[in-house]
Amino acid sequence: MQVSVLRSVLDTNDLIAKENRKEFDAHGCFVVNLMSAPGSGKTTVLERTLRALDGRLRAVVIEGDVQGTLDADRLAPLGVPVVQINTEPHFGGECHLDARMIRNALPALDLDGVDLVLIENVGNLVCPAEFWVGEDRKVMVLSVAEGEDKPLKYPLMFRVSQLLLLNKLDLLGYLDFDLARFRANAARVNPALPVIELSARTGEGFQAWVDWLAREVAGNTTRRAPCGEI
Amino acid sequence: MQVSVLRSVLDTNDLIAKENRKEFDAHGCFVVNLMSAPGSGKTTVLERTLRALDGRLRAVVIEGDVQGTLDADRLAPLGVPVVQINTEPHFGGECHLDARMIRNALPALDLDGVDLVLIENVGNLVCPAEFWVGEDRKVMVLSVAEGEDKPLKYPLMFRVSQLLLLNKLDLLGYLDFDLARFRANAARVNPALPVIELSARTGEGFQAWVDWLAREVAGNTTRRAPCGEI
Repeated sequence: MQVSVLRSVLDTNDLIAKENRKEFDAHGCFVVNLMSAPGSGKTTVLERTLRALDGRLRAVVIEGDVQGTLDADRLAPLGVPVVQINTEPHFGGECHLDARMIRNALPALDLDGVDLVLIENVGNLVCPAEFWVGEDRKVMVLSVAEGEDKPLKYPLMFRVSQLLLLNKLDLLGYLDFDLARFRANAARVNPALPVIELSARTGEGFQAWVDWLAREVAGNTTRRAPCGEI
Repeated sequence: MQVSVLRSVLDTNDLIAKENRKEFDAHGCFVVNLMSAPGSGKTTVLERTLRALDGRLRAVVIEGDVQGTLDADRLAPLGVPVVQINTEPHFGGECHLDARMIRNALPALDLDGVDLVLIENVGNLVCPAEFWVGEDRKVMVLSVAEGEDKPLKYPLMFRVSQLLLLNKLDLLGYLDFDLARFRANAARVNPALPVIELSARTGEGFQAWVDWLAREVAGNTTRRAPCGEI
């Protein structure tokens, strides 16, 4: 019974995600769902990404957290519109964003002229991978401090992602993290997953990530749709 | 509706957890539920803990993972009985252990003469905190690489835990982690939470943790119960 209830939750989620998708398309927005374990550095990656974009793309951010506005507060000085979602009213704190939460957040965002919507999911390597919220791409962040075995232990996240940002590269010298073994583990789970190695602390590798974003946004065919010119 | 279904899931869970508790009591076992985000170092903490105990306590381990037996395989050479639970058949991989999973694992463990059951939960800072599986103590592990803001972002885990192991202390010099600010954040959420700073890599701080375990096990009043002497 539990499984069938959860199946129906996922089906309902997909219906609402399609509605979100329509709204993003109507405004020509490209949407990235950024996912990771807690503490992998998603917010620091976002901070540096927004600085690196430096107005090249008009971006907005949807922040997902169980509680609080810490991440939204960190991004506020960057002058990019940020909406905070707190998942706490649900079940003592939902461990992921779902399509309805994004739907409820959209009225607070003006999507006119927006190229890029960056969604920072709740820190969790399991459930966020199961909920499509209407995004174009799932991008996962993994910190090298988390260990090279993670693809084998949390395979779904690695399977559904279209890009992996391997973060905290500056720590590599102080860890027993074997980069070759990690790459082999990731390839075993998803051979098609591109990996960009970077450090949100030092900025190393950020050019490749920002170029990826710019390319993906440029390839967004909904971008010049007439309904996006409102 | 979703909330009421989940409430009923939690109620059913507690009933089964009480059954687990009875079985642990019948054998005089003290049970620790070890929880953390992915990559905080739970398994390395367990490896070093089992080595440090060096037979002082008779321990068994229940390993929870979405998929695979990597952690159980790492612990196998230590000569301690290990049972692996995989949560994958449920909902594309449950993000936590629940009481029923522990119940199903118990027949595979001989609890006679066992002092200490160490349960390694699935890596996740949200849902594991919501499911009592019959344990005496919840112990959480946080790596300093995860950042000092975690108590404010995942408060339930910090609230329900009876001990926090602050791991990877050897990385402190390479991070922007402010120990004083972390302690203040943790105290804001749970002023009664003791913190042991340690490094599973270097062994620093392990004596305090092993002493804590020994004290807790010694204080386990069910330990000498006649039904535990079978």
